Amino acid sequence: MAPDLTGLWPPVCTPFDETGAVDPVRLQKHAQALLADGATGLAILGTTSEANSLTLGERRGVIDACLAGGIPASALLPGTGASALDEAAELSCHAADAGAAGVLLLPPFYYKGVTDDGLFAFVARLIEKCGARVPRIVLYHIPPMAVIGWSMPLTRRLIEAFPGVVVGMKDSSGDLAHIKDVIAAFPGFAVFPGAETFLLEAMRAGAVGCISATANVNAREISALTARWRDPDADARQRSIGAVREAVQACGLIPGAKAILAARYRDPAWQAVRPPLLPLSEAAASELLANPAIAALVAGKPARG
Amino acid sequence: MAPDLTGLWPPVCTPFDETGAVDPVRLQKHAQALLADGATGLAILGTTSEANSLTLGERRGVIDACLAGGIPASALLPGTGASALDEAAELSCHAADAGAAGVLLLPPFYYKGVTDDGLFAFVARLIEKCGARVPRIVLYHIPPMAVIGWSMPLTRRLIEAFPGVVVGMKDSSGDLAHIKDVIAAFPGFAVFPGAETFLLEAMRAGAVGCISATANVNAREISALTARWRDPDADARQRSIGAVREAVQACGLIPGAKAILAARYRDPAWQAVRPPLLPLSEAAASELLANPAIAALVAGKPARG
Repeated sequence: MAPDLTGLWPPVCTPFDETGAVDPVRLQKHAQALLADGATGLAILGTTSEANSLTLGERRGVIDACLAGGIPASALLPGTGASALDEAAELSCHAADAGAAGVLLLPPFYYKGVTDDGLFAFVARLIEKCGARVPRIVLYHIPPMAVIGWSMPLTRRLIEAFPGVVVGMKDSSGDLAHIKDVIAAFPGFAVFPGAETFLLEAMRAGAVGCISATANVNAREISALTARWRDPDADARQRSIGAVREAVQACGLIPGAKAILAARYRDPAWQAVRPPLLPLSEAAASELLANPAIAALVAGKPARG
Repeated sequence: MAPDLTGLWPPVCTPFDETGAVDPVRLQKHAQALLADGATGLAILGTTSEANSLTLGERRGVIDACLAGGIPASALLPGTGASALDEAAELSCHAADAGAAGVLLLPPFYYKGVTDDGLFAFVARLIEKCGARVPRIVLYHIPPMAVIGWSMPLTRRLIEAFPGVVVGMKDSSGDLAHIKDVIAAFPGFAVFPGAETFLLEAMRAGAVGCISATANVNAREISALTARWRDPDADARQRSIGAVREAVQACGLIPGAKAILAARYRDPAWQAVRPPLLPLSEAAASELLANPAIAALVAGKPARG
């Protein structure tokens, strides 16, 4: 039974070993730590996971490694998008077969200037290819990376054509107004802001939770806000997690989050990223780790006193 | 022995059979027809080939099908780019092992806002992974699709770091001034405009040839212009191929070219494209084919009388 698509689903950073290969043991440890810190589930194979720097085989392997490491399949929401429909379908079916809570679906991001009809055909064909094995689909809307996205009319059409299958959206537009529009337009549709920058306001508007890069390092506080956004200290918590976000974002979300994980786990291998990303310079990492809010995270203390 | 990287290298449209699979027989026939029409070689697996809608296995298969169909390896310039470095490296090595003239390398297009240092690391790592099997690399600069591209300083750095390996650029910026800048900045670097729209002017500035979607349907005239751009009728030829380009572009280059091939080969299967692309509507195809310049191409006559 899939858990509700609510709460915090960190897009789990992918660790690489000394040879540059995906490291299943470090991955399992980090995945378990995130669940222990309050994550509802894990949005593995997202942008922050460098999923598009992994081969298709490696992406299958990340799903399998989580399962082998004792993560319940129902706590997995893997990114399965690809420009090639057959690759997106293969990975989506693999996730569904495993019993994943759903999949996060990027549009076919190589293409630009495509029509909503073409994107609808892409999703329809993918669902057709999966057949009875079709997973629940959370549309991954991230115009800053994919450039193309899931428009409001297309989203409506997909929800109506595939009820119970197209069930939500990760909205990484960075545009609170857009997030609110999606929430208002589609009651019952699970909307996850792709950042905690304005999470409290999004929760008040009806967001179901959050999928955010910095959840890799601040899962406890962000999950607390998704659960207790009605509490009197919610505004203070929003300010606190916002400060962490800002510090990590300033030096690059993925290398920044990995530098913090390397410090927290006392394991420099965690700094590794794949080109075209580059790890933080020593100076940049030192500066980030010297930030008091970040230092508290590294020490495993709550960011607020 | 690789042929010179000069002249016309059409980005060969990829045919699909009635089940949607890549069709090697139709591909071989079309590839041979393009060479018979004057193409120097074939830039298979480009954007026009819908390469990013093919799985990695299908992309390998397209190279193998051309070889099996009697195309000399030295007449192949496959696109091998991918966001995942290991996939780009695998396909590049496969092309090099086959003896291809070179490869066309997209930047890792999922990522945006990456640094030149990161892109340099991507290419350097790919070359390192290929080792002794490294192919000649033609940088594929197509900001309208990839958004990220090969900047002038990065191009200089790559040429200097990898002499004899990074040997050229397909410039699909659509910006004649940029094409001229690249030609002027890097003597001996093989620059192919990615369209024939201003091919004559580019040839006069020092371009070595052309790699263009519409070369799938107009190879005879475009190759003639790359070979005989000093002839007195070059301006007339430029106007003629420009008119064909405009007509096809107006209805979408890939479905447009495929509609023309379907008519030329009397084979409706050629119309098939993969989502998110869609085939032309019947009305749009009829209108395109009714254009006198296009009708002449379908009949196999030169576009000019």
